[in-house]
Amino acid sequence: MEIQVLHQVMEWNEDVSADVRKTLSEKKVCLINVMGSPGAGKTSLITALIRLLRDHFSIGVIEGDITGQIDAEKIAALHIPAVQLNTDGACHIEAMSIQKILPDFELDKLDVIFVENIGNLVCPAEFDIGESFRLTILSVPEGDDKVVKYPLMFTDTDCLVLNKCDMLPYFDFDTQRVAADYRGVNPEGGLFQVSSRTGEGLEALAQHLGERISAVLA
Amino acid sequence: MEIQVLHQVMEWNEDVSADVRKTLSEKKVCLINVMGSPGAGKTSLITALIRLLRDHFSIGVIEGDITGQIDAEKIAALHIPAVQLNTDGACHIEAMSIQKILPDFELDKLDVIFVENIGNLVCPAEFDIGESFRLTILSVPEGDDKVVKYPLMFTDTDCLVLNKCDMLPYFDFDTQRVAADYRGVNPEGGLFQVSSRTGEGLEALAQHLGERISAVLA
Repeated sequence: MEIQVLHQVMEWNEDVSADVRKTLSEKKVCLINVMGSPGAGKTSLITALIRLLRDHFSIGVIEGDITGQIDAEKIAALHIPAVQLNTDGACHIEAMSIQKILPDFELDKLDVIFVENIGNLVCPAEFDIGESFRLTILSVPEGDDKVVKYPLMFTDTDCLVLNKCDMLPYFDFDTQRVAADYRGVNPEGGLFQVSSRTGEGLEALAQHLGERISAVLA
Repeated sequence: MEIQVLHQVMEWNEDVSADVRKTLSEKKVCLINVMGSPGAGKTSLITALIRLLRDHFSIGVIEGDITGQIDAEKIAALHIPAVQLNTDGACHIEAMSIQKILPDFELDKLDVIFVENIGNLVCPAEFDIGESFRLTILSVPEGDDKVVKYPLMFTDTDCLVLNKCDMLPYFDFDTQRVAADYRGVNPEGGLFQVSSRTGEGLEALAQHLGERISAVLA
């Protein structure tokens, strides 16, 4: 019974995500689905990327949270259009929510929308929200066994960002193990080591994203 | 449609969790549901607690993971009965899984079963698995805004464990803020600061758990 139910929700989500993707394609807007565990550093990384990309692209943000608006306030402080999406308990964002929110943005004036998904290394990976591409963030303190333990999040992504790399001296974290596990399930995906706090690696990541965004807008 | 479906699963889960609780009560076994984000340190904390409690209680472990058996192997290395529960993609443990696994243990000889839930700060809190009580683990690197952002996990728990406290010097983490947020939603819950790595705070937590276990077994 349970499996059939999930299937219905998924099919409905797929119909809507196709609509979202069509709208964004017509308006030439690149939607980036940013996923990772609670505390992986999604908001900080998006903030850092906005600073590096805002001279080149017009950017908006959808902040997904179960409740509250802590993260949207951080983005709005950068004078970037931000919408807080509260899922009221739900553990992931679905395409229906994105479809409802898009009219809140002036899509003709935007190039990029970052969507910060709910902090969760499992469920968000199952739901296509109409994104142009996906970023998965894994932070060093979470441990180097996460690709093996939560495979879908690393298989179904376009780019893995290892965040909080300034913390490598303090944790027993083998970046080569993570890279090998990731390459095993996702040989084509991007892989970047960064620290939002020190700025290490952010330029390279921003350049990669800039190229991918430009390809979507072309 | 979606909400009704969730309701059906929940009601089914409640029936089964009541059965599990009845079995455990008859056998005088205390089931502890350990929850937290990926990488919060659930396995390490359970391992540390086993070392401190095994002279007083007979202990078993159910290790929940989406796939693989990395964590169960760590527990089995301590010569503790361990069962690996693979959810095959699902983001939480349901009572039905516990009901199926219980016959794998010699319940007449056990006092305590630790259940390590899937690493997820959202969904596991919604599912009663027949536990005697719940531990929520939040690690310092995850950030001090998590009680506000993921409220159910902190409202519906018996004890919050702040883990990786040896990392406080390296992160911008306000323990008083977390304590105040937690007290706001859960005035009766236990609260402990520990580090599985340095051992700080573990004795106090183990003593508290020992008292709670003894109350269940009485």
